[in-house]
Amino acid sequence: MVAGDQSDPADVLILGGGPGGYVAALRAQQLGRSVTLIERGRVGGVCLNEGCIPSKHLSRFAAARSAAEAFAASGMPPFSGRPDMILFQKSRAAAVDTLVKGVSSLLQGAGVKVVEGSARFVGRTRVCVEIGEESVRYFDFKDVVIATGSRAAGGDASTVEPSRALEWDSIPATLLVIGDDYIALEIAVAYARLGSQVTLAAPGDRLLPDFDRDLSTAALRGARSAGVEVALSSGPTLGNWERAVASGDRRPNLDHLDLRAAGIAAPDGKLNVDAQLRLDRHVFAIGDVTAGLPLAHRAMAQGRAAGDVLGGKPAAFDSRAIPRTVFAAPELAAVGMTEDEALAAGISVSIGRFPLGALGRAVIESATAGFAKLVFAQDGGAVLGAHLAGPRATELVAEMALAIEMGATSEDLALTVHAHPTFAEALMEAAEVSLGRPIHVRGAAKR
Amino acid sequence: MVAGDQSDPADVLILGGGPGGYVAALRAQQLGRSVTLIERGRVGGVCLNEGCIPSKHLSRFAAARSAAEAFAASGMPPFSGRPDMILFQKSRAAAVDTLVKGVSSLLQGAGVKVVEGSARFVGRTRVCVEIGEESVRYFDFKDVVIATGSRAAGGDASTVEPSRALEWDSIPATLLVIGDDYIALEIAVAYARLGSQVTLAAPGDRLLPDFDRDLSTAALRGARSAGVEVALSSGPTLGNWERAVASGDRRPNLDHLDLRAAGIAAPDGKLNVDAQLRLDRHVFAIGDVTAGLPLAHRAMAQGRAAGDVLGGKPAAFDSRAIPRTVFAAPELAAVGMTEDEALAAGISVSIGRFPLGALGRAVIESATAGFAKLVFAQDGGAVLGAHLAGPRATELVAEMALAIEMGATSEDLALTVHAHPTFAEALMEAAEVSLGRPIHVRGAAKR
Repeated sequence: MVAGDQSDPADVLILGGGPGGYVAALRAQQLGRSVTLIERGRVGGVCLNEGCIPSKHLSRFAAARSAAEAFAASGMPPFSGRPDMILFQKSRAAAVDTLVKGVSSLLQGAGVKVVEGSARFVGRTRVCVEIGEESVRYFDFKDVVIATGSRAAGGDASTVEPSRALEWDSIPATLLVIGDDYIALEIAVAYARLGSQVTLAAPGDRLLPDFDRDLSTAALRGARSAGVEVALSSGPTLGNWERAVASGDRRPNLDHLDLRAAGIAAPDGKLNVDAQLRLDRHVFAIGDVTAGLPLAHRAMAQGRAAGDVLGGKPAAFDSRAIPRTVFAAPELAAVGMTEDEALAAGISVSIGRFPLGALGRAVIESATAGFAKLVFAQDGGAVLGAHLAGPRATELVAEMALAIEMGATSEDLALTVHAHPTFAEALMEAAEVSLGRPIHVRGAAKR
Repeated sequence: MVAGDQSDPADVLILGGGPGGYVAALRAQQLGRSVTLIERGRVGGVCLNEGCIPSKHLSRFAAARSAAEAFAASGMPPFSGRPDMILFQKSRAAAVDTLVKGVSSLLQGAGVKVVEGSARFVGRTRVCVEIGEESVRYFDFKDVVIATGSRAAGGDASTVEPSRALEWDSIPATLLVIGDDYIALEIAVAYARLGSQVTLAAPGDRLLPDFDRDLSTAALRGARSAGVEVALSSGPTLGNWERAVASGDRRPNLDHLDLRAAGIAAPDGKLNVDAQLRLDRHVFAIGDVTAGLPLAHRAMAQGRAAGDVLGGKPAAFDSRAIPRTVFAAPELAAVGMTEDEALAAGISVSIGRFPLGALGRAVIESATAGFAKLVFAQDGGAVLGAHLAGPRATELVAEMALAIEMGATSEDLALTVHAHPTFAEALMEAAEVSLGRPIHVRGAAKR
């Protein structure tokens, strides 16, 4: 290895090919920049390779089974046996491969140069990339984007991290899941639906502590209905489980970047960027290395915005309306402010709450336990937040994100015709409730 | 029977307790009017008793089965037998009963007086209601709302109308479905998924002739994939089928109302109302008796608007953004203008088309055949229409209806963060395509 003067110029250098990095690369290249992307593993990052995609694949597989089983009393015969998880894992791996190849092909088609290796800064405008064990390349960049993502903080030896639980080729007879976040909940519900005897040990007094309290309650009831034994305020767990998984904090992948060599500070272990995703004039950061929720779609939105800025477009990343989705029992989703957050911010709110029991579509699907809870500004009626529990909640939240972005009010929602019979009607009905003119629930349902 | 002078006063008299009528009743009563509702059968109308609700119940039951079967190659075991349709029909009837009771309870709780009987006009402000075979009552109304709905126009003796096909307590070995509309398509797909050998005989050269052509194509391919034998441009059908159903036009229920007695004209057999749903100062009409699509959510929206007008509120019914949904294979949905309609109206459009094959969520579910096709005004980028094919399309269309109502543009949609991995991302991606800056498809995908 020779740390010589030989180096390649890089108009835009992107460190990390996850959802943030590859999207920034595509957009910047689209706008005329010449992009080099450094990725040490496979493009697509944690999300595509071991996070969102495989976890939703497992959740969906389990949900398809339980959706059919929910019709048992309506004449649906039982399944003839248990799922074959060896086949499932082949299918899961094939889906990931398809998507990884898709991203590679998009990058190649766009003209982004992809270099496989591990990057670290060796100067204010220079990065060293270790390629394999014996080779290095240097790049002198005009602009750099740090998009190296995050990893599970790691537990003790008796548990595995969540991504490992997505790779099991058999269903454990007994499973301990430690955690209270959406990842722990999704794994607990999926394996319970597939036949495991699952205990979910949550450290605090509620599940999903960073969601609206009503969603925490719905998550708890739903998990228990799905057969999960939930232990709240759980201390050290005793017992014998065939397998155990622990979901905890994630840690930004910054340690090996040698940020000091580039004069970059990471107070609190995260990078604090401005609205243009800049740390410095030519240094950008996006995704899980920045302060905020570690979500793929947040990283992608930051990637688009950073790509726009790199391409000379006026752009900014606005984190007001970032939807969050939980593929559990039932599906849960949220966007914008909770009731508590609005009150804490001194905003008077009007709440529209509509129970799915009053909805034709939900009665058909025997899915009457959920609700739509919408938070509106008392003054003017603007949509501030939405908190949804029930089938399709993870898709319905999209309308509410658009509502927040457009400054839509309760009147706007109430007057938009929603197709019958769909779950989306719950949003319109909740708006009517907040306006004191409910249709499908009694007037008393207004709070 | 004595046609005497004795009559009851009715502040607001509503003829028909379907989705239009009962919603108008609830809203008008809410706003201080005193409402009497005349219904000859059960409240909820065709929609609840023999239309939308039972048909979506059947579609959902069949879809839950085929969604599990779609994972067969991923390790989902087969079902142990065929569905028990006797149990299904009990469950379907119970769901309808629950919802009918719910509507009755809402009306009662609100203070709406419900009278069971068959109404006809006997003067400009008087209605006669036949109650049973021997009794009549007269009502002198201040305002009247005609909401008597529609019925199947009827075919020949060799076929049944669609609502009958929702009541079968066995799965026919062979089934002929005649028609090209969404009702015919839904029945064909549902029974094919449940194991019938189905032939769908469509009179014209495409299915869903009143939808965007791309949706017609998706409907055809999807039905064939679900095992339906589709015969386009089909003449008189020859062959032997265990059962046959024909879906055709619907006819407004106006014949028995004796409209002339009230001085009401029904040119073309339908009632032409203004934006306030008025035929005359004190005569309103809503739902399937009015010109327009016979859809429950259209009737409900008209009912809300009529109720508001009756309650003295400024209100109007605007039919620009009425979503339409088809619970077939795949789900289909549309709102606003088709590409052809926009061009016919002289509007230059920009199309954003995003194929589900490029979407992580669709790859997970092996549902890559669908797409989102969005129609934007070339000038300004306002959303004019949306045409969706794929899982959850019937829910996703809600966001697009709101987009049209809010005057959202392609930029607004593209910049709204959509959760990953969801089907809703297709809407954002389609907007990016129309803007010439696609992320997850090649640039060439732009049209």
